[in-house]
Amino acid sequence: MNLFSDSKLTQNDFLGGRMRLLQPRAGYRAGVDPVLLAAVVPATRGHTVLELGCGAGAAILCLLARVPGLQAVGVELQASYAELARRNAAENDAPLEVVEADISALPATLKQRQFDHVLANPPYYRAGAYSPADDTGRSIALGEQTPLETWIDCAAKRLAPRGYLHMIQKANRLPDILIACEGRLGSVEILPLAARAGRKAELVILRARKGGRADFQLRAPVVLHDGDRHERDGESYTPRVSDVLRKGASLPGFSDQ
Amino acid sequence: MNLFSDSKLTQNDFLGGRMRLLQPRAGYRAGVDPVLLAAVVPATRGHTVLELGCGAGAAILCLLARVPGLQAVGVELQASYAELARRNAAENDAPLEVVEADISALPATLKQRQFDHVLANPPYYRAGAYSPADDTGRSIALGEQTPLETWIDCAAKRLAPRGYLHMIQKANRLPDILIACEGRLGSVEILPLAARAGRKAELVILRARKGGRADFQLRAPVVLHDGDRHERDGESYTPRVSDVLRKGASLPGFSDQ
Repeated sequence: MNLFSDSKLTQNDFLGGRMRLLQPRAGYRAGVDPVLLAAVVPATRGHTVLELGCGAGAAILCLLARVPGLQAVGVELQASYAELARRNAAENDAPLEVVEADISALPATLKQRQFDHVLANPPYYRAGAYSPADDTGRSIALGEQTPLETWIDCAAKRLAPRGYLHMIQKANRLPDILIACEGRLGSVEILPLAARAGRKAELVILRARKGGRADFQLRAPVVLHDGDRHERDGESYTPRVSDVLRKGASLPGFSDQ
Repeated sequence: MNLFSDSKLTQNDFLGGRMRLLQPRAGYRAGVDPVLLAAVVPATRGHTVLELGCGAGAAILCLLARVPGLQAVGVELQASYAELARRNAAENDAPLEVVEADISALPATLKQRQFDHVLANPPYYRAGAYSPADDTGRSIALGEQTPLETWIDCAAKRLAPRGYLHMIQKANRLPDILIACEGRLGSVEILPLAARAGRKAELVILRARKGGRADFQLRAPVVLHDGDRHERDGESYTPRVSDVLRKGASLPGFSDQ
């Protein structure tokens, strides 16, 4: 197992310091995406939560910091990131169990379990469309080795009846996402994320429900930044997004449950 | 052929009077949807255009009023509406040929032709989800007899290479739309239409291109009405939409070609 040495790690504050994350200086580094993903999950005390491809744990640790009393499992393919997630869970005193596994071949013990919530922030680039960086960990985390359909299929199988999947992904993958949900999950909603008002969506967050039968919904976009363009070096997040990133608020936008 | 008698028709202004449409008083009546559909089509002089399910001709006649020098064909299943579309074309002095046919079984003469643009405003309600009104014409026009996949398949076959399909539909049908485009059309873009700012999309307009290879795009929504709710009986359309409805402007929102 090729672990990260401390000299190759940085520790960064999330949610205004409510969560601190060790991350590889040169590897995959969490941005705002896993924080926004965690902020839409309507989990409450006592719920069970599974993150597929948890990396160093950014999304699931943000969720555990916002909602007390959850039981969480993170699955991570890369041993070095799985170990980092364990260390981050301990440093944040978070109830996170980390399983080193491939989501297309989960261990039998996990296959026997079901969860109220599944979340996932799968790699953003299609296999073949990404030039691998020198750092293999980063290229596995960014470049897609596993089709989106496998992620959604795995999530659907691990969800308890009426359980929710939330997944963040590049907006240009929306057709693949909806096709993969067909026949597996229902009550699908899409929350678009746009950099600025009036711009196309860069990212989408999927909500889908095991056994759901409600009509598909395309929600109003969440706008990340104020203004028409990047005007200064400081932050320009809209109040709703700033509350999520800096104060650990939940992110409204999906329909009420 | 059961035609509409004049006493059962009304004549209505569209595009600030640039187009006038005879419509059955009690049958399917065009609202703003076909006008918005026609406003997004990037047709220019000399282009050929096909509308599938043209009804009395609202969408295609709006397009012909906005863009001079097009050659247009409308296909309509119901003889009474096909005849009305012919009459509306004549009254507007518009170059529209109307063919009475089922889009799932087009006549051989049409199957030999290809078009630069196809547009369609298919029925909004799934077969079985709609209680047929007494008026059969209205129930055929509103209730889906033909799957969306058939509309998109017919459009894809009739498009010339690099030609565009534009289709308006309820937003809850977006998964069906994207699934039907898969393998048939590319460079898919979705333009959501929301009643008010911050509300979910009620309608979507699909743009897709024959042989297109660009990434899928989810565009910023077009907001139809100003304000948070319906506040008065008068019009509350946003300036961009009002320009389309009252001045015959085109509707921006898709990517530039």
